[in-house]
Amino acid sequence: MEINGVEIEDTFAEAFGIQVSRILVTAATKKLAKIAATEATGYGTSVIGCPAEAGIDCYVPPEETPDGRPGYMIMICNMSKKKLDHELLERVGMCLLTAATTAAFDALDDADEKLNVGFKLKFFGDGFEKELNIDGRTVYSVPIMSGDFLVEGEFGIKSGIAGGNFFIMGDSQSSALIAAEAAVDAIGAVEGAITPFPGGVVASGSKVGSNKYKFLDASTNEKMCVTLKDEVEESDIPADVNGVYEIVIDGVSEEAVKEAMKVGIEAATKVPGVLKISAGNFGGNLGTCNIKLHEIF
Amino acid sequence: MEINGVEIEDTFAEAFGIQVSRILVTAATKKLAKIAATEATGYGTSVIGCPAEAGIDCYVPPEETPDGRPGYMIMICNMSKKKLDHELLERVGMCLLTAATTAAFDALDDADEKLNVGFKLKFFGDGFEKELNIDGRTVYSVPIMSGDFLVEGEFGIKSGIAGGNFFIMGDSQSSALIAAEAAVDAIGAVEGAITPFPGGVVASGSKVGSNKYKFLDASTNEKMCVTLKDEVEESDIPADVNGVYEIVIDGVSEEAVKEAMKVGIEAATKVPGVLKISAGNFGGNLGTCNIKLHEIF
Amino acid sequence: MEINGVEIEDTFAEAFGIQVSRILVTAATKKLAKIAATEATGYGTSVIGCPAEAGIDCYVPPEETPDGRPGYMIMICNMSKKKLDHELLERVGMCLLTAATTAAFDALDDADEKLNVGFKLKFFGDGFEKELNIDGRTVYSVPIMSGDFLVEGEFGIKSGIAGGNFFIMGDSQSSALIAAEAAVDAIGAVEGAITPFPGGVVASGSKVGSNKYKFLDASTNEKMCVTLKDEVEESDIPADVNGVYEIVIDGVSEEAVKEAMKVGIEAATKVPGVLKISAGNFGGNLGTCNIKLHEIF
Amino acid sequence: MEINGVEIEDTFAEAFGIQVSRILVTAATKKLAKIAATEATGYGTSVIGCPAEAGIDCYVPPEETPDGRPGYMIMICNMSKKKLDHELLERVGMCLLTAATTAAFDALDDADEKLNVGFKLKFFGDGFEKELNIDGRTVYSVPIMSGDFLVEGEFGIKSGIAGGNFFIMGDSQSSALIAAEAAVDAIGAVEGAITPFPGGVVASGSKVGSNKYKFLDASTNEKMCVTLKDEVEESDIPADVNGVYEIVIDGVSEEAVKEAMKVGIEAATKVPGVLKISAGNFGGNLGTCNIKLHEIF
Repeated sequence: MEINGVEIEDTFAEAFGIQVSRILVTAATKKLAKIAATEATGYGTSVIGCPAEAGIDCYVPPEETPDGRPGYMIMICNMSKKKLDHELLERVGMCLLTAATTAAFDALDDADEKLNVGFKLKFFGDGFEKELNIDGRTVYSVPIMSGDFLVEGEFGIKSGIAGGNFFIMGDSQSSALIAAEAAVDAIGAVEGAITPFPGGVVASGSKVGSNKYKFLDASTNEKMCVTLKDEVEESDIPADVNGVYEIVIDGVSEEAVKEAMKVGIEAATKVPGVLKISAGNFGGNLGTCNIKLHEIF
Repeated sequence: MEINGVEIEDTFAEAFGIQVSRILVTAATKKLAKIAATEATGYGTSVIGCPAEAGIDCYVPPEETPDGRPGYMIMICNMSKKKLDHELLERVGMCLLTAATTAAFDALDDADEKLNVGFKLKFFGDGFEKELNIDGRTVYSVPIMSGDFLVEGEFGIKSGIAGGNFFIMGDSQSSALIAAEAAVDAIGAVEGAITPFPGGVVASGSKVGSNKYKFLDASTNEKMCVTLKDEVEESDIPADVNGVYEIVIDGVSEEAVKEAMKVGIEAATKVPGVLKISAGNFGGNLGTCNIKLHEIF
Repeated sequence: MEINGVEIEDTFAEAFGIQVSRILVTAATKKLAKIAATEATGYGTSVIGCPAEAGIDCYVPPEETPDGRPGYMIMICNMSKKKLDHELLERVGMCLLTAATTAAFDALDDADEKLNVGFKLKFFGDGFEKELNIDGRTVYSVPIMSGDFLVEGEFGIKSGIAGGNFFIMGDSQSSALIAAEAAVDAIGAVEGAITPFPGGVVASGSKVGSNKYKFLDASTNEKMCVTLKDEVEESDIPADVNGVYEIVIDGVSEEAVKEAMKVGIEAATKVPGVLKISAGNFGGNLGTCNIKLHEIF
Repeated sequence: MEINGVEIEDTFAEAFGIQVSRILVTAATKKLAKIAATEATGYGTSVIGCPAEAGIDCYVPPEETPDGRPGYMIMICNMSKKKLDHELLERVGMCLLTAATTAAFDALDDADEKLNVGFKLKFFGDGFEKELNIDGRTVYSVPIMSGDFLVEGEFGIKSGIAGGNFFIMGDSQSSALIAAEAAVDAIGAVEGAITPFPGGVVASGSKVGSNKYKFLDASTNEKMCVTLKDEVEESDIPADVNGVYEIVIDGVSEEAVKEAMKVGIEAATKVPGVLKISAGNFGGNLGTCNIKLHEIF
């Protein structure tokens, strides 16, 4: 199969279940909302080592937000509900409440469950907090130094999908990188999907365990390393490929992840020098769902 | 005392000791280095709720870095050496190693001690890693999917200062906010100092404990809340002040923090509508050092 | 009349006819498209002194562009068709053709007329250019150093509206400024409307002629200057107003300009410290249309 | 000759004389200064079709500016003093005076001559303007709507150099592009040098006249077009090169241009996939100075 003249390998991305939250962060200006959203979703590439997987989903103009101010949708995810609850409390409390002019609203459709994050945070107001009703939402107004921080009482969570992915193989490292940026740009238009790695792009891949160091749970996937393609046996890097980047996607649903993979691959294959698209899996028995590349188009 | 016609209150900032690291993140382009530095320093406003205090210190042009590529200095801090060791391992491993084209070098002068973060990360190479010498530094080259990640073997840490601070009081919320942005811009030129809150600006202030909710360790400092100035007794907000933001500074030394406070206050007081500068303390007996506002000029 | 508790003066904006073009600039990545769009629309605040009025209308994700790459809609305007033709030729030729990976497509609905800008630019190819058909458009592929520049043969122009406007009056300069930024953020979501001044915000206002210097065509409107409110007779600045910024809007139609004014005012009035919204006119007899503030809500 | 393992062709850049101005634009915040600087230097890639060559030179922190606010150095250039005078008047008057919170100071060392741009602009104040002395400079304070615009009375100009340049040839378009970005990043640290094309990068090259269309003064340099390398005779594109971008530099002096070329080439050759560096000239008899690539290292 080819998209824009680029080979799409007949393989699949193996994705996993994850608990997902989606929060709308508004502020006086778009720039202020971006600053808060960026802080709250940092240090959030993968739960392998980060306390959450997190990212900015999309921008929402003032006319479409509950408080008529510009905002960004962010998603914060963790396999464990308990850990997600902790992360929401701290990321909202330490990175949004402390940010200039912000407010935080629940933005998850079809929640499985609600966590009372805002209800807990309201106590920071020490009795000066107030309960408001905005657009049918229960929202707390907490007096802080610079004004009042508004936070919705409950944030929804639901079972979503982590680890949707595809590999972009290019004739040079730079071709693969610019194609990865184009893919991230395209995924930016898909609601309910984030690319949690730095700039949305993953530079490294890992395998379970290690051949040499038995104390490691994971190590570099040498068969996918471009600088080792002539050194290791059975490298998965084609001879003419000199750069590989991966896009990893977390989404509110399998549909959102599939749509993100589709538009991401379509955009990536527009960049000259992209030679092949593949995807990562562990054989298909570990994950929640296997997304076949050929079936998303 | 007045600076640029603005009253500087005769008070002091009470600052605390903290373990500080300083890392130079380089990448193929300035933009790519910024992306990685931002991810690695996110979710790092205050150790009260975040796993570290972290921020971008300054930009370094290609001619001045060990590998001749553009870079950003970042600082990652924690009260505990053990926690800082963990944070360095995860923030470098999950947010820099995974980022496109990055490398990470130690950039702390006068370290008290070295943590072997890069030495530990090299094992990810599963035997394909190599030891290099760059500019007299021991650096490991770890093959990853897109190329090789370079990481210095050891990162220095030292006793630094957290919680340097000052308050900007303005005739409106917006005056105080733009002045706070100006202060952060000025502090950006001070090497060895970061402003870890979102965009460098703090919108909320807290007091120890709570008057109403006994289960709380901290709650809003109602005497410093502009929207409560007519409601609480003994408010610290002058009658004509309608906006307050705080700048919090972490630095490699007391000198760096003082210099940051000095240039930050000078810049803030240039903005029309700024009426007063103050600072936060807990009486002076809790912190490592008390920085008197009147003595830094 | 009040919006969000802020007085909307019972006055009108006097707007003028202008010839408008609208071009979609695509590139390999969103960032590259933004760079080109910014260069091509610079030095374009007002035809009083600039060779055009120009600005970025909105972002278009890859899935919605003719070539499947991210893009920005830009608008370039001039009172004179001949001057607009010149500006299109030079701004496309010098700022888009020369920019990395860009392409330029006509994006004006309901054009009154077509200018053969791309047809003229194709000759730069010196015989190596090719005519393509993309999505039913006649597009020329011009070989340049780094690849091929694609440019649509004809760009539509139509009679649009320049000088839609409103004033934001705040209790401080900063309040008015942050409100102006919020207004620009909101107008960013209105298709077919730009705010051509720097950052979308106008810091100065003028009156026709001069009282003191007879050789001037225009001079500062002293009645609208906040720093002169106690100095000039009959100042239009209310006593409690210390900051005024204007938003000026150019649009493809009166409807687009009205919608932009509406959402801009709604967003501006959300910012604390905004006291009044007004608009600028010359008595109502000079312009093409008078847009009454009270009639757009 | 090789730099970082990349061949540097034994050729020279042919540069031309140009009249150069250098202005410091300050504002309340770094972001506001950037907005104004960007507008004032837009539509300024090459005087072949733009009314000026213009760009941002570097950022200046608050502690180092005459008014203690953050600023950007910009350069505006034209072959003709008369045209440069016009451009300064309009770009300062329409793009800086109109921008929020800005001021404009002369920043050219060793001026050959002074143009009284600020003196002319002060008349806009209609008698309400005032003459100030700031740091020994004669500066006019002109009341505008939002406050007072400060502009220095005279701006220096001097004979500088335009068209310093080098070509970056890469194994893919993307390799050359990322290397070009790295070069621009490096040149950003050289004071007195700008890269006036979009993002600092030039995607197209031209030759004098045209082989096919006799009415053209200039047309694409087909021998330097990567997509024509197999089509034209005597292509200058090596067989393994698939991407070429040019960096064009204007500077206050030959030294500044040489330094910019040096650090730009050093940075570009750090990017994997860059195969060769060359430079553009017209045989050496047209320009003001010929800068040999091998002599700048």
